[in-house]
Amino acid sequence: MNADVLARLKDAAGPKGFSVDPAEIAPHLEEWRGTWHGHTPLLLKPATTADVSRILSICNETATPIVPQGGNTGLVGGQIPLGGEILLSLARMSRVRRVDKAGANMIVEAGVTLAGAQVAASDAEMYFPLSIASEGSATIGGNLSTNAGGVHVLRYGMARDLVLGLEVVLADGRVLDMLRTLRKDNTGYDLKNLFIGAEGTLGIITAAALKLFPQPAEYATALVAVPDPRAAVDLLAQLQSATGGLLSAYELIARSGLELVLAHIPGAGDPLQAPSPWYVLAEAGGAARFALRQVLEDALAAAMEAGLASDAVVASSEAQRASLWRLRENLSEAQKKEGASLKHDIAVPVAAIPDFVARAIPAVLTAVPGARPVPFGHLGDGNLHFNFSLPKGGDGDAFLAKRAEVARVVHDVVHDFQGSMSAEHGIGVMKRDELLRYKSAAEIGVMRALKRLLDPNDILNPGKVLT
Amino acid sequence: MNADVLARLKDAAGPKGFSVDPAEIAPHLEEWRGTWHGHTPLLLKPATTADVSRILSICNETATPIVPQGGNTGLVGGQIPLGGEILLSLARMSRVRRVDKAGANMIVEAGVTLAGAQVAASDAEMYFPLSIASEGSATIGGNLSTNAGGVHVLRYGMARDLVLGLEVVLADGRVLDMLRTLRKDNTGYDLKNLFIGAEGTLGIITAAALKLFPQPAEYATALVAVPDPRAAVDLLAQLQSATGGLLSAYELIARSGLELVLAHIPGAGDPLQAPSPWYVLAEAGGAARFALRQVLEDALAAAMEAGLASDAVVASSEAQRASLWRLRENLSEAQKKEGASLKHDIAVPVAAIPDFVARAIPAVLTAVPGARPVPFGHLGDGNLHFNFSLPKGGDGDAFLAKRAEVARVVHDVVHDFQGSMSAEHGIGVMKRDELLRYKSAAEIGVMRALKRLLDPNDILNPGKVLT
Repeated sequence: MNADVLARLKDAAGPKGFSVDPAEIAPHLEEWRGTWHGHTPLLLKPATTADVSRILSICNETATPIVPQGGNTGLVGGQIPLGGEILLSLARMSRVRRVDKAGANMIVEAGVTLAGAQVAASDAEMYFPLSIASEGSATIGGNLSTNAGGVHVLRYGMARDLVLGLEVVLADGRVLDMLRTLRKDNTGYDLKNLFIGAEGTLGIITAAALKLFPQPAEYATALVAVPDPRAAVDLLAQLQSATGGLLSAYELIARSGLELVLAHIPGAGDPLQAPSPWYVLAEAGGAARFALRQVLEDALAAAMEAGLASDAVVASSEAQRASLWRLRENLSEAQKKEGASLKHDIAVPVAAIPDFVARAIPAVLTAVPGARPVPFGHLGDGNLHFNFSLPKGGDGDAFLAKRAEVARVVHDVVHDFQGSMSAEHGIGVMKRDELLRYKSAAEIGVMRALKRLLDPNDILNPGKVLT
Repeated sequence: MNADVLARLKDAAGPKGFSVDPAEIAPHLEEWRGTWHGHTPLLLKPATTADVSRILSICNETATPIVPQGGNTGLVGGQIPLGGEILLSLARMSRVRRVDKAGANMIVEAGVTLAGAQVAASDAEMYFPLSIASEGSATIGGNLSTNAGGVHVLRYGMARDLVLGLEVVLADGRVLDMLRTLRKDNTGYDLKNLFIGAEGTLGIITAAALKLFPQPAEYATALVAVPDPRAAVDLLAQLQSATGGLLSAYELIARSGLELVLAHIPGAGDPLQAPSPWYVLAEAGGAARFALRQVLEDALAAAMEAGLASDAVVASSEAQRASLWRLRENLSEAQKKEGASLKHDIAVPVAAIPDFVARAIPAVLTAVPGARPVPFGHLGDGNLHFNFSLPKGGDGDAFLAKRAEVARVVHDVVHDFQGSMSAEHGIGVMKRDELLRYKSAAEIGVMRALKRLLDPNDILNPGKVLT
């Protein structure tokens, strides 16, 4: 890369705003599962929106490619400078600019971690509901650029749904100041949603105005044994009706996954007496006066009478609630300890989950006899982590060599159900080719046209999402 | 307009798909308040998405401008063929394609009325929360093209927030089939939000997948006397906290408005004993088990002790609830009967409402001494109908002649509070110039670029939103 350009970029970022120290840069170059590795001549660490604007102006003028990065927790390679691009870390833009309790919103910069944003909200006795496993490191900028999902989408929506306003720097350095906190504003085209979920390829998100909610005063949490996914779907409708739509989580767990947790996670125990082929972890939250625990218990009793559930435990304390959640949260870790696994981040319409599972599991077993299905995830959103562990006693590398073949099998079934082969994690580089396979030509055409329009010199995270 | 093009368009729409009958066309040419009048050589009435595709192909190829229209209830002229364009009514595309109770969604065509969509939902014992005064005539296509708001935005969001998927015909006739019902789908750029709220200038919405919710089993509704808008804002936070965020409406009413209703609407009565300068109409909905009425009564008792309210009535029956709502719903009608009025559809951050009212009313009274402020509206969203009636005994025409001057005064104050001069109604032709005044050059620049990209021949609702 041109030394003059590098010097100009360092100058634009200021003395504390860059690094060429390999030790400092190294952690930014590797994706945490180790799948993607990058390299860069320069790490930029701007502290202000004006810094980002100057940096992008130079990149655009000199056709210098640049990769934005938040907490480096993405799973599809979107945040890694695979082609030796300039690396732009937003980590120093970490101010909570304002928390407005009366207006139920806050303005935070891109580098604020998700956990930090949650704390800023709770410090004001409000609630920011976005919650994902990596929230300690993941940043708001990355969450919005990838339209993060997580366990509370059922009630509060995706990251996209939590945004009131956005500050974006365009490829040419122009700043789109759309940091409005309005609930209603019909003055022209909706520009902010172009940048949310675009993985840094259309502009750089530098700050956001986010919605806040009242803190749930009380939770009701249950682990429910259900005979099959169909019963789980029917139970969802019944619990939503009973709680007036206050379910904030509705997670499906196969017995195979629970057994991995019981085998590999110290202290984990089966809270129910008899094994069940499937489970649901359901949680509702609301005002203390609503006695949600009793509402949930009564609804579950009715569900058992109707044959939708065989057993259930409703948490009677915060400690018991936490232990139920640990079963769910340790599924990934337990599967990792079991050995090699093939994972798929898919969504289909909620009502199609039973048919999808019934078709996709045999299809995978035909491709890889003996593979062990460990499906779990956000049933309330139609989103499953449709995972498989290697055959008992099988060879891990041989199993992993089937990755592309199995993904094709799974995603073809997903496509038949008008589903998504990337429900939460995005496209990055990992799913670029599949995007072309499953997306209509018309949609791809408009996407490409938008990319050319907003980044004509192809400097913003080039090669990600679209080739 | 070229006779050959007209013939081709008629042919594309089919024998039942067009009209040149002045009597049939006339109601489509006038906006219902009588402000905007149009003319057209041809009314097209396609029945299918394929019809719309063929029609737009011809328009694009021949650079023939076309104006889409739903229920013709818009207030800013967006749906009127002011330049003699072809008129495209989506009214015949009125099928409810599918209601999916388990997945909590439905797919409806653009010509389904909002009331029809509400009924389709309730027939499945589900709830579609969008609600506006014109819902009997307004259509889903128009609701989405204008990103309709209404009284339930506080809890359920704008029309935009209720959309899972969209079917759109592009200017060149290509069909974007994005009718997915997924809650999570991170496969590429979000295209649907480009067309929602674009007032038919970027593409024609032909169908939508909409979110459904559990039906609230019980409502708690109160009319509360509050001393001032500041108390109303503080009370909002307290009621949201008490109900765990279940408020679905929170409307501010000035005494001046209530008095117009009492004077002009037969059967209307003041439900409270002593007059109050301001009122709030608050409503929460949820499961019957939550005893929301008692929750609301207790929260209001606490608010009265704290001086946030001086009196309140909580509806004890559905009839009483309806009579409280009639006071709110008749405000526009009562103001119409009082004579000429100047109206402003504005939003500011919720917490800024008191300061906005305190500054904007004197500013208007300086411009028009004696004008009578009648502010009311969706305080929970920071959205006021910031209206003024003519001075007592004043001349209506002289008052209306001040329209532009007063709008400038109001909107300048709105702008100072980082608000919106079109919270709900959009831009159309009415606010095109103001859009240029208040929107940043960067935003206008991106909007213009998007228009050129998606409609290079400027055939889609030309001259609306942008000039």
